[in-house]
Amino acid sequence: MTTVDSPNKISCVSRITFKTSLFVVAIFALLTSGRAIAQGGHATNSGPSHEKLREAVLRIIDRAEHDSTGYRRLEYLCDTFGPRLSGSGNLVDAIEWTRKEMQRDKFPRVFTEEVMVPHWVRGVERADLVFPRTAALTMLGLGGSVATPEAGIEAEILAVSSFQELTRRSAEALGKIVLFDVPYTNYGETVQYRSRGAIDAARAGAVASLIRSVTPVSLLTPHTGAMHYADSVPKIPHAAVAPEDAMMLHRMVDRGQKPRVRLIMGAQTLPDTISHNVIAEIPGTEFPDEIVVFGGHFDSWDAGHGAHDDAAGCIAAWEALRILQQLELKPKRTLRLVFWTNEENGVRGGRAYAERHANERHVFALEADAGIFSPRGFGFTGTDSAITILRKLAPLLAPLGADTITQGGGGVDISFLTRSGVPSAGLSVDGSKYFWYHHSTADTVDKVDPKDFWRCSAAIAALVYAVAELPRPLPR
Amino acid sequence: MTTVDSPNKISCVSRITFKTSLFVVAIFALLTSGRAIAQGGHATNSGPSHEKLREAVLRIIDRAEHDSTGYRRLEYLCDTFGPRLSGSGNLVDAIEWTRKEMQRDKFPRVFTEEVMVPHWVRGVERADLVFPRTAALTMLGLGGSVATPEAGIEAEILAVSSFQELTRRSAEALGKIVLFDVPYTNYGETVQYRSRGAIDAARAGAVASLIRSVTPVSLLTPHTGAMHYADSVPKIPHAAVAPEDAMMLHRMVDRGQKPRVRLIMGAQTLPDTISHNVIAEIPGTEFPDEIVVFGGHFDSWDAGHGAHDDAAGCIAAWEALRILQQLELKPKRTLRLVFWTNEENGVRGGRAYAERHANERHVFALEADAGIFSPRGFGFTGTDSAITILRKLAPLLAPLGADTITQGGGGVDISFLTRSGVPSAGLSVDGSKYFWYHHSTADTVDKVDPKDFWRCSAAIAALVYAVAELPRPLPR
Repeated sequence: MTTVDSPNKISCVSRITFKTSLFVVAIFALLTSGRAIAQGGHATNSGPSHEKLREAVLRIIDRAEHDSTGYRRLEYLCDTFGPRLSGSGNLVDAIEWTRKEMQRDKFPRVFTEEVMVPHWVRGVERADLVFPRTAALTMLGLGGSVATPEAGIEAEILAVSSFQELTRRSAEALGKIVLFDVPYTNYGETVQYRSRGAIDAARAGAVASLIRSVTPVSLLTPHTGAMHYADSVPKIPHAAVAPEDAMMLHRMVDRGQKPRVRLIMGAQTLPDTISHNVIAEIPGTEFPDEIVVFGGHFDSWDAGHGAHDDAAGCIAAWEALRILQQLELKPKRTLRLVFWTNEENGVRGGRAYAERHANERHVFALEADAGIFSPRGFGFTGTDSAITILRKLAPLLAPLGADTITQGGGGVDISFLTRSGVPSAGLSVDGSKYFWYHHSTADTVDKVDPKDFWRCSAAIAALVYAVAELPRPLPR
Repeated sequence: MTTVDSPNKISCVSRITFKTSLFVVAIFALLTSGRAIAQGGHATNSGPSHEKLREAVLRIIDRAEHDSTGYRRLEYLCDTFGPRLSGSGNLVDAIEWTRKEMQRDKFPRVFTEEVMVPHWVRGVERADLVFPRTAALTMLGLGGSVATPEAGIEAEILAVSSFQELTRRSAEALGKIVLFDVPYTNYGETVQYRSRGAIDAARAGAVASLIRSVTPVSLLTPHTGAMHYADSVPKIPHAAVAPEDAMMLHRMVDRGQKPRVRLIMGAQTLPDTISHNVIAEIPGTEFPDEIVVFGGHFDSWDAGHGAHDDAAGCIAAWEALRILQQLELKPKRTLRLVFWTNEENGVRGGRAYAERHANERHVFALEADAGIFSPRGFGFTGTDSAITILRKLAPLLAPLGADTITQGGGGVDISFLTRSGVPSAGLSVDGSKYFWYHHSTADTVDKVDPKDFWRCSAAIAALVYAVAELPRPLPR
């Protein structure tokens, strides 16, 4: 994901086995059968259909646990196509493979929608310490950065720990490479040095800027991500270095060793190019024009394989739709799975989807883009009466540990729908390790636990099915 | 370190503040003052001197906590010289810097002793997946490996999970690159694939061999280390790949994708070259011919900065000697600090020291080579009566959490002394993260906690001082 803040960090999970959880649900069903689900402020006796819902959720959970199709697809996708940056052949190939596999799943509708996306390419890049000793630094250029001249930029390092320190010491920045060596606090706070560091550094007269990679933990691991320029200041090259290298450079500066770095970046922004959102749909049996849309973003950065960000979110959602179809659970409303393109460096997929489908009636939007770890529940953005209804549905997800509905949540790609009033949710997971991997070379499929994957898939399937089955749409 | 097994993995530490610990020690002193320390089986009333020892240890702890000289030297060493592989200019420069700094410390004797060491150089190396897609793999050649031909070796991968599996499937290995994709259990067990994987693979007819890097945790982190050949089988190139890449290749094999890898390694074994052990000494006041020797190994692998392995061990020991000198704590016996060279790929420093000093009377040997983390105590190899004495001294180290004396311990460099009967110990630490960093690009000084560092330094200082002050030498 790009700009959503750090997910929930609770790390102590009560892990119950599936058999135990089935038992718990059965007991819960006995105790609460016949209890009404309030609907739009009206108490509606939905006893029989609520019983049906419980049974459906148990079947969903059972199927998710015992069918590894989704996880195998996740492995195949990551291994076979690798990173999926907008404009890359990898993304084109991965989208085409997905479309074909979705057709093989025999969803009633499978189609793609064209989206023009930015096309930034990294090119050859490196950063070297050239004084007081020579050593290669571990770096990743930031997405959208301009290139250096072909011979690179060589300059002394000015290391600062904050924007405030740069402001105080701006007179020292002229002609230097500013290094923002900022310890990680939380993503939302620390990512600002990645987003706008080049602007502040250029304003102070720097010739390039580096950041300590945005991560709480590193094994010499560089992380990339989007960065921005302002029209009013020169565009200077902007790159991340591994935290270890940032700290070393900072110590050298503090020691008076006057370290010098040579930065070479061959990045280019090419003309916009064609990409696609991928869509699969099961029409509603009663209200086909009322749409429950859910999914993730299919593009990734070009480091690692974008396994957590966001292949796993996409494929968990895909698996949710596949399980519902396999179980022949056909809800009243339409279920629409979307893999949005270009979330990472443009959000063009989310925007194009919202524009193209503006006249349709979206009753609920859900995005999974905080990694696929142990599920917690969902963060929700909408009215109080809507969250009340979701909280009455949530106990159905208790066997998955996914029964917590918190205020606030959604996703970058569905944010256009959210702003137009569509009740929106984001899958919440134990995010304590998400930023270890996020946008880094280490975001590979081995970091996604198969059990977490099937539990997230089941949670998504259960929630979208339950919402699509409500007697009336979630109130706006 | 090279061959010592996994250190203690206890991870829950009772962390007490220094003020609390001073109080605890004071109470302990009141309760136990006058208690004798058994010596060589004889109960000797050492009340007054034991009181003096307690005071000395409290002063050592206080000094270690409030003087950051050692940690600053560790940072300077790692940042300024980088990795210190035997034969490298970095190691030569670092040794020369150390000698001068030790002279600046005004130890009564500072000298170096020449040692001929192996000179293996990595050269240019890379591994690329060439089918079913092209991608650079994250790799590190293993120390001592032969080169590939200049154009590299390209072959299909045969992935196995154990030596046993390779034996069963040896008919499939001919002409292939064998990948030992072995999940980490513990260092002693898993490192065998690094040590002798090339022998088993070559015996089965493989043209090269790869291992999953020996580590419990990875963020696309490759780990190097020593490997061996047998005269009876061809020498084939042997390299580690990051665990993520090993697992990916294995999945591709299991899927029938028949992955092919091109391995290029320019490694060379050059003629032996000159290195040095570095020695600093404070002569004993009563028994100068009785030597308490302690230290670590100063060489490292050429990935990362060898911060935990073993710069921190060396400099913690150095700081121990410096603190004792600063506090004018002059023990009865000689304290000798040694930085052994070439532990990683030859153990020539430890061997040369033992040979050159064979006629001296070593009464105790201590090595710190398990990383510098929260100290636990010491592992000891020697007689029961000696361990009984150490266990009576150990409560002095309780304020540091370093009061556990376990059976078995030492170090690779002092193993020659241990085998000749010298009572020997190794510093024990919380090793739960040691193998995250060990022999990897991520073994950098930021991984060494300054508080752990001073506590280890103080523990070493207190123990060597106490042993050097015993009324009689530790019994053999």
